[in-house]
Amino acid sequence: MKTLKEIIKEAEDGKVAVGHFNVSDCVGVKAIFGAAQALNLPVIIGVSEGERDFIGVKRIASTVKSIREEFDYPIYLNADHTHSFEKIKEAVEAGFDAVLFDGGKLPLEENIKQTKEVVEYVRSVAAGRGTEILIEGELGYIGGSSSLLENIPEGAQINEKDLTTIEEAARLVKETGIDLLAPAVGNLHGILKNAPQPNLNIERIKAIREAAGIPIVLHGGSGVSDEEFLAAINAGISIIHINTELRLAWRTAMEESLKSRPNEIVPYKILPAVVEKMKEITAARMRLFNKMI
Amino acid sequence: MKTLKEIIKEAEDGKVAVGHFNVSDCVGVKAIFGAAQALNLPVIIGVSEGERDFIGVKRIASTVKSIREEFDYPIYLNADHTHSFEKIKEAVEAGFDAVLFDGGKLPLEENIKQTKEVVEYVRSVAAGRGTEILIEGELGYIGGSSSLLENIPEGAQINEKDLTTIEEAARLVKETGIDLLAPAVGNLHGILKNAPQPNLNIERIKAIREAAGIPIVLHGGSGVSDEEFLAAINAGISIIHINTELRLAWRTAMEESLKSRPNEIVPYKILPAVVEKMKEITAARMRLFNKMI
Repeated sequence: MKTLKEIIKEAEDGKVAVGHFNVSDCVGVKAIFGAAQALNLPVIIGVSEGERDFIGVKRIASTVKSIREEFDYPIYLNADHTHSFEKIKEAVEAGFDAVLFDGGKLPLEENIKQTKEVVEYVRSVAAGRGTEILIEGELGYIGGSSSLLENIPEGAQINEKDLTTIEEAARLVKETGIDLLAPAVGNLHGILKNAPQPNLNIERIKAIREAAGIPIVLHGGSGVSDEEFLAAINAGISIIHINTELRLAWRTAMEESLKSRPNEIVPYKILPAVVEKMKEITAARMRLFNKMI
Repeated sequence: MKTLKEIIKEAEDGKVAVGHFNVSDCVGVKAIFGAAQALNLPVIIGVSEGERDFIGVKRIASTVKSIREEFDYPIYLNADHTHSFEKIKEAVEAGFDAVLFDGGKLPLEENIKQTKEVVEYVRSVAAGRGTEILIEGELGYIGGSSSLLENIPEGAQINEKDLTTIEEAARLVKETGIDLLAPAVGNLHGILKNAPQPNLNIERIKAIREAAGIPIVLHGGSGVSDEEFLAAINAGISIIHINTELRLAWRTAMEESLKSRPNEIVPYKILPAVVEKMKEITAARMRLFNKMI
């Protein structure tokens, strides 16, 4: 089995991106793994703090591990947007393959300090186990909620003057030793209901990738156009996060499935339509990220 | 950690019954474990062939195992109503604690023959592992679907002349070596929409328990009255299966939660209401089965 680091290196070399999809329940896991398996592509399952609190940190870890072992499949688990050392520890102890310490809202010095502590802790656990656990650092604030938004969240850094600078990127990487970097490059969590998504700054992505010297992760992928995704990948993005689109599909498909089966009470007869819809969306994103279109 | 056999023995001695609750997804697992934990009672999670095909045989096994290990908790997993040797094998290989080989629709001789083969296979695997896997046998047909029924299913044996006899019970146990017996004693899978549930034959339960000499399992518990449950437990029932009530709660609570949160797309904010409703029902049943009322 390839390590996640090797998978990301291959994506970089092939000028494609690995899909990272968030889940709140086992229906999401089934859909995402189904899509990945159908396309024979590696995949990362992500869980935010809220998502993993609901599923159970150890539950999602044992689920992903059991899929990986049963199918000998490159499926990985990431602790998405983790804001405290305690929550990082929980995920690492449960056996996650990667963690994102999100100090994006902190002043740079504090972000560097806390991220560095996380790196030291994670490295020592990984060394003790003889495994590899990737650490992602974050710069800038891109909104906190993967939901349908009325307006751009206050403080979200989507204007050119607020984007992650190459100096910040270079410093965070150099001073902490992170493996992956999530910058603010015009991206935004959530989908704006009444306005187009902000544009990605492709030049900035390219400059940050060069300055950072490590793979770059694009958060807030929902609602981004196909052309922008491809430009972002060509500019140096190696992992792309999709969440809001899948949540919307979950709700819409659940409502439709219940409505079209008014007398059905068996969950495993109602849920396959939800799995199918989420699987379609995941597969379409994975094909795009891997230039299979 | 006590074995399931020890748990059932304790229930028999205490004149109470262990609750067995079916799940189709991880929301059900969360609800049932939550209820058991709140009452500090052992619990059995059940999955029919359809339920385990949807969740994934290895997925549900790793989920229950991960709960058991994290909380050092007496939670067990049963392969409910399994109709083929192949499906028994799948569950045993995945690490289930118990299997129900359901030859209830077969002629008695054929039921005995196939159940015996299952017992031999399961015993040899368990011995090789040094663990214990319980085998339940079934006599009679009590309907095949845990759903809302317009009518009593054709062939369902709920009339006194069709109930499991003490001779059949004694033979199946003696000739196969099963650990648990599920008889037809007036019980029925599913809930009748427009009629009261058939009555349990309490005298027959008592006679079968004595003739069988092993613990007796009551299937089709949804819709049975509190008084009948208590009489059945006093007559010798040690495990009671609940499914339809939980499925109905799943659907109803899902619809309500979606309706009352029209703009919410985050599954982990919609699903807790479903967990809560299923948890309430499970807890109420467990309190009754354990005479905590």
